Amino acid sequence: MLVDGVISDHIRADDRGLAYGDGLFETLAVVAGRPRFWQRHMDRLAAGCQKLGLSVPPQAELLREVQTVAAGQSKCVVKIILTRGSGGRGYTPPEPITARRVVSAHDWPANITDLRSKGVTARICHLKLATQPSLGGIKHLNRLEQVLASREISAFPEPDGVLLDQENYVISLLSANIFLVNGRRLLTPRMDRCGVRGVLRGVILEQFQDRCELRRIVVEMLAEADEIFACSALRGIFPVTRIDKLELTPGPVTRELQDWFAGYAGES
Amino acid sequence: MLVDGVISDHIRADDRGLAYGDGLFETLAVVAGRPRFWQRHMDRLAAGCQKLGLSVPPQAELLREVQTVAAGQSKCVVKIILTRGSGGRGYTPPEPITARRVVSAHDWPANITDLRSKGVTARICHLKLATQPSLGGIKHLNRLEQVLASREISAFPEPDGVLLDQENYVISLLSANIFLVNGRRLLTPRMDRCGVRGVLRGVILEQFQDRCELRRIVVEMLAEADEIFACSALRGIFPVTRIDKLELTPGPVTRELQDWFAGYAGES
Repeated sequence: MLVDGVISDHIRADDRGLAYGDGLFETLAVVAGRPRFWQRHMDRLAAGCQKLGLSVPPQAELLREVQTVAAGQSKCVVKIILTRGSGGRGYTPPEPITARRVVSAHDWPANITDLRSKGVTARICHLKLATQPSLGGIKHLNRLEQVLASREISAFPEPDGVLLDQENYVISLLSANIFLVNGRRLLTPRMDRCGVRGVLRGVILEQFQDRCELRRIVVEMLAEADEIFACSALRGIFPVTRIDKLELTPGPVTRELQDWFAGYAGES
Repeated sequence: MLVDGVISDHIRADDRGLAYGDGLFETLAVVAGRPRFWQRHMDRLAAGCQKLGLSVPPQAELLREVQTVAAGQSKCVVKIILTRGSGGRGYTPPEPITARRVVSAHDWPANITDLRSKGVTARICHLKLATQPSLGGIKHLNRLEQVLASREISAFPEPDGVLLDQENYVISLLSANIFLVNGRRLLTPRMDRCGVRGVLRGVILEQFQDRCELRRIVVEMLAEADEIFACSALRGIFPVTRIDKLELTPGPVTRELQDWFAGYAGES
């Protein structure tokens, strides 16, 4: 693990990331030393920095650190945490800010192959995401909602959860974006009021732009979908095979996108 | 600073407090070695632990740590951070949890005497607090909203801000609760959907229960109030003398509560 470029597994306890969740993170798939979707992760990090009023860290430096912690591993996950650093009186940030970064390597997710072929089952979570346009879409460190939703789901056999917002619109799975397939059309929720603009979601929206539609999605629309799939920069594209009592079959559009991703990602 | 009872100014960088804001905090006034409102801070911490699914740390141990970091200081502020500790795969907490605590001493707030006599001016923040009943009222570590609101206010001469929720109800100042005085009546917002149930707010609600009313407070009600005051366990009770263009005069009810607090708090 690197903290501000130096090998360490500790950070200062007065860090504002700990005190207030005052920062951002990115989780990247690194295959053969190359972080996948690197520029898109950096673009999202930059968008988050702009919302929080942080300077964007130099990309070349971050890339070097990612490659350092991933060295010698054929496939791994690298997490970047960027915080506003130490100090400041209460909530008001200090001037000037000295941001802090933590870069760490983690195991490649288990059972990805199974997940992609067999899919995932999910329950609709009781916890509803709060509407906060000032933070919507970015990958900030205030993730108690996701922690509580994960705790809720862990009591049930379904491994994943569907998160709704306070108005009962569908937003995402616990840590993946969601797409509804209607014929050849791909519908996915807007991320302007809550949720995270996933990196792979962004790639799909661009690559299949003539077939994609950003929508407010009500729960009833889940039952009308021909297929439902989820996507994550780490886990790729995987079918959702059940949501509560709604049974779904992985279909040709999900398989089409999986084939496209396999060519794009160059994983194996 | 004590981390799990041991002198240190660092914590492990894989702490879930840093990763997700997965934890709680309390900020206490410690006068002559005695933490003020100790039991109430512990009660709120326990309420937060229940919402997040954390074990309540042993009080005697926490008290010993608070007194250790405050030793030799006639007045200081002690902050307790309690996190879910290290580990877990993504958002899902590990089983079992090993919570982590950070206890640190800080300077007594400057200019309290001035604040209490002259009061504070405030602007209504553009940032609106999100509605999240699962987290409403507790003092958790997801505080990006307060950081963004503080950043917003720091561009203006007013030192404080009034936070509204997404439905434009008045919730609090940046880090203090708010009371509207109507005659002898004291109105204060509910904290069930957002905001923090302040310790001193709780004491006032109990001590003056026959005069207090929990209300949804719309902005127009500010102009109808005879007086407005704010309260915080650290800073006590202080008048609000301006909100945007609304001028307010510290009045007899605010002074009455300040006198009561002075007797209660035994600060000087």
